[in-house]
Amino acid sequence: MARVVVDVMPKPEILDPQGQAVAGALGRLGFSGVAAVRQGKHFELEVDDDVDDEVLAEIAEGFLANPVIEQWTVRRLDS
Amino acid sequence: MARVVVDVMPKPEILDPQGQAVAGALGRLGFSGVAAVRQGKHFELEVDDDVDDEVLAEIAEGFLANPVIEQWTVRRLDS
Repeated sequence: MARVVVDVMPKPEILDPQGQAVAGALGRLGFSGVAAVRQGKHFELEVDDDVDDEVLAEIAEGFLANPVIEQWTVRRLDS
Repeated sequence: MARVVVDVMPKPEILDPQGQAVAGALGRLGFSGVAAVRQGKHFELEVDDDVDDEVLAEIAEGFLANPVIEQWTVRRLDS
């Protein structure tokens, strides 16, 4: 079993109202040092050892992210 | 400016129906090698250099995560 992390974020050119709301709220709560927040999704997968990077890319691109508006990264965790 | 990542995940003892739905769907789509999926949130913050780890922990624990059901990690990105 391998542990894999897929992070899915809105593309830089896409507005992120959720992240903006968080940044605004933190400012109002007194955390003045936070200039910007972007919010995305974080997936942790347990996969068989024979699942290669190509399959992981297919899963991330096709099913975890919406590639029109989101970008993704895949990272294997040591363990 | 420093870039900081906060990952928020459901605690291990908390059911994660969203992640289970993703795992089930991947299985039905033919990705048989995926044993489990857990889904959480991924935040990317741009913060002033004088924002220290204590403040980041306060932000993560108090505002980005619900500490009753979620755990969080804070990680600074090099750049």
